[in-house]
Amino acid sequence: MSEKTILDYETVALDDANSALVIIDQTKLPGSTEIISLKTGEEIWDAIYLLKVRGAPAIGVAAAFGIYLLAKQIKANDYETFYQEFVKQKEYLNSARPTAVNLSWALNRMDGLCQSMSGETIPAILEALKKEAIAIKEEDIQVCKAIGEYGLSLVKPGDGILTHCNAGQLATCKYGTATAPIYLGHERGYNFRVFADETRPLLQGARLTAYELHSAGVDVTLICDNMSATVMKNGWVNAVFVGCDRVAANGDTANKIGTSVVATVAKRYNVPVYICAPTSTIDMNTPTGSDITIEQRPAHEVTEMWYEERMAPEGVKVFNPAFDVTDHDLIAGIVTEYGVARAPYTESLKEIFEKKNS
Amino acid sequence: MSEKTILDYETVALDDANSALVIIDQTKLPGSTEIISLKTGEEIWDAIYLLKVRGAPAIGVAAAFGIYLLAKQIKANDYETFYQEFVKQKEYLNSARPTAVNLSWALNRMDGLCQSMSGETIPAILEALKKEAIAIKEEDIQVCKAIGEYGLSLVKPGDGILTHCNAGQLATCKYGTATAPIYLGHERGYNFRVFADETRPLLQGARLTAYELHSAGVDVTLICDNMSATVMKNGWVNAVFVGCDRVAANGDTANKIGTSVVATVAKRYNVPVYICAPTSTIDMNTPTGSDITIEQRPAHEVTEMWYEERMAPEGVKVFNPAFDVTDHDLIAGIVTEYGVARAPYTESLKEIFEKKNS
Repeated sequence: MSEKTILDYETVALDDANSALVIIDQTKLPGSTEIISLKTGEEIWDAIYLLKVRGAPAIGVAAAFGIYLLAKQIKANDYETFYQEFVKQKEYLNSARPTAVNLSWALNRMDGLCQSMSGETIPAILEALKKEAIAIKEEDIQVCKAIGEYGLSLVKPGDGILTHCNAGQLATCKYGTATAPIYLGHERGYNFRVFADETRPLLQGARLTAYELHSAGVDVTLICDNMSATVMKNGWVNAVFVGCDRVAANGDTANKIGTSVVATVAKRYNVPVYICAPTSTIDMNTPTGSDITIEQRPAHEVTEMWYEERMAPEGVKVFNPAFDVTDHDLIAGIVTEYGVARAPYTESLKEIFEKKNS
Repeated sequence: MSEKTILDYETVALDDANSALVIIDQTKLPGSTEIISLKTGEEIWDAIYLLKVRGAPAIGVAAAFGIYLLAKQIKANDYETFYQEFVKQKEYLNSARPTAVNLSWALNRMDGLCQSMSGETIPAILEALKKEAIAIKEEDIQVCKAIGEYGLSLVKPGDGILTHCNAGQLATCKYGTATAPIYLGHERGYNFRVFADETRPLLQGARLTAYELHSAGVDVTLICDNMSATVMKNGWVNAVFVGCDRVAANGDTANKIGTSVVATVAKRYNVPVYICAPTSTIDMNTPTGSDITIEQRPAHEVTEMWYEERMAPEGVKVFNPAFDVTDHDLIAGIVTEYGVARAPYTESLKEIFEKKNS
């Protein structure tokens, strides 16, 4: 393909020569692919706040590059003055999305490095900050790639794959989680046929997943969430790959609303459901899915958002949970960067962490 | 309630004193409830063509009233001149939606009456046509009401009921089919809690079902199609009532896309699924669901319709079937105007027709 595809860009990149953070403006998708360069603290803060960059891993990396770039701009000759300003900038960036864990995690990791180098010169600190930010990004890519390799071992060339929501490259730095097996397979000529659920109400499947897979040249077909039974009954789906927001110790998995519907339908048609889960999303301190609190979102997302006019009567009640829990008995495997956990998950997830910590 | 609700109106009514067909303009819902009077052939044709009146039974009744009103306008002193013009008007109305069976069925019934009265005076024929049109409407209401009574016997006060798409009053003359048990229960203080699937891509659940139930004072909550598992897992749903487009002889049922997804999820949570089916929709000549052809609809309904801008990338493939088939093993009962058929349906549906023809 001569035209550039989304895979020619990275969701989040550092342009150090121009002291800029370079991202794909996700608020412009799928209408247009705009690559924007951010230099000031305000520009970076806005990009995170306005969801120009989104997805927990991608936000973390954007923040790491961001704080490095802001540190470069600090005018100081001594460590104390430098560090005082560094903390100010870090707290500013951290305020963009207070609930996104990866944001504060990445900023705190950069801060820790800074503190550990109080005896060093400022140029040396800047060089180390740059390396750390790049390491955070590389680690994200390696985790996604490892998940992709393990996921790829579960399917074969020509398979049909269904995915829900966007656990794609756009939510990470490269490959994504649920899309990692798809991209790796695509690179190797697996010729998957992918079905992307549009994922109401926020349409991440239509706006982001269909966009990024289509842009990458993957054979992707967009369907409404209520069409999963038809494509599975037709025999078009060999595996379901989805991401996750939190995996409990028993394997119960919270993910975007509708995931458990897909998994229930998949069970009827004997289609295996694989959860693509970086170990950072597996919470061994949460015993079961019923211990996971489900965020409720506002009604207007269902009744008005995206539309030219309201699509439901004024005053009607709306129930709009952001996530649901897929019970572990509906899950064929949990694909981590350390391998595929299988039932019983209480045992296999422990083994994954033993492998990670060994 | 002092304010008028949709149940104070009828979907289709005859205003004979003003020689007008009175309908709720469904293209204006849910934004505003506009009651419009149609007098000319062009106005009536347009209303059917533009879906101002929709739903097979409602279209049939509108056509019956329509051809009566147009017959009234015929300037003729002899039967031959009258009938020639009658057929012309009938064929004109029939061209509004060539594929809607009830349209031609109702017009042919009116035509048959007209032919059988060739020896009568024109005023006598007009009087008979009026009575026949009113009878067609009354029969529709009685069928819906009977379905409602049988359906109501399957639930109890306070129950949670989930429905998909619109098999409501707006698709018929009164009560609807899937909504008939809900309305009858509402009249009798059953205090149902109803969940209406929004029903992508055409949003009939949000625009029509949520609208008509909310307007009637029923406790209705709008959900996205992918939230069915959550409301059922929460124990909020005691029964699913849906309409149907065609029931095969073995009980397999074609209905709006997503019905089989709801039914699969309901099975997991032990929620009974009832198909509300006038016997006119049961096709004993179709052996199984796999013999039913599923209409494919255009991509723009998924990617662009209703939206301010495209919600999916240009050129992406879209699969958009209008219906799916719910296998009979997922169906707890088929509610007809002659009673509730239970598995094995091959036997019980035969008995329903024996009752009908006796």
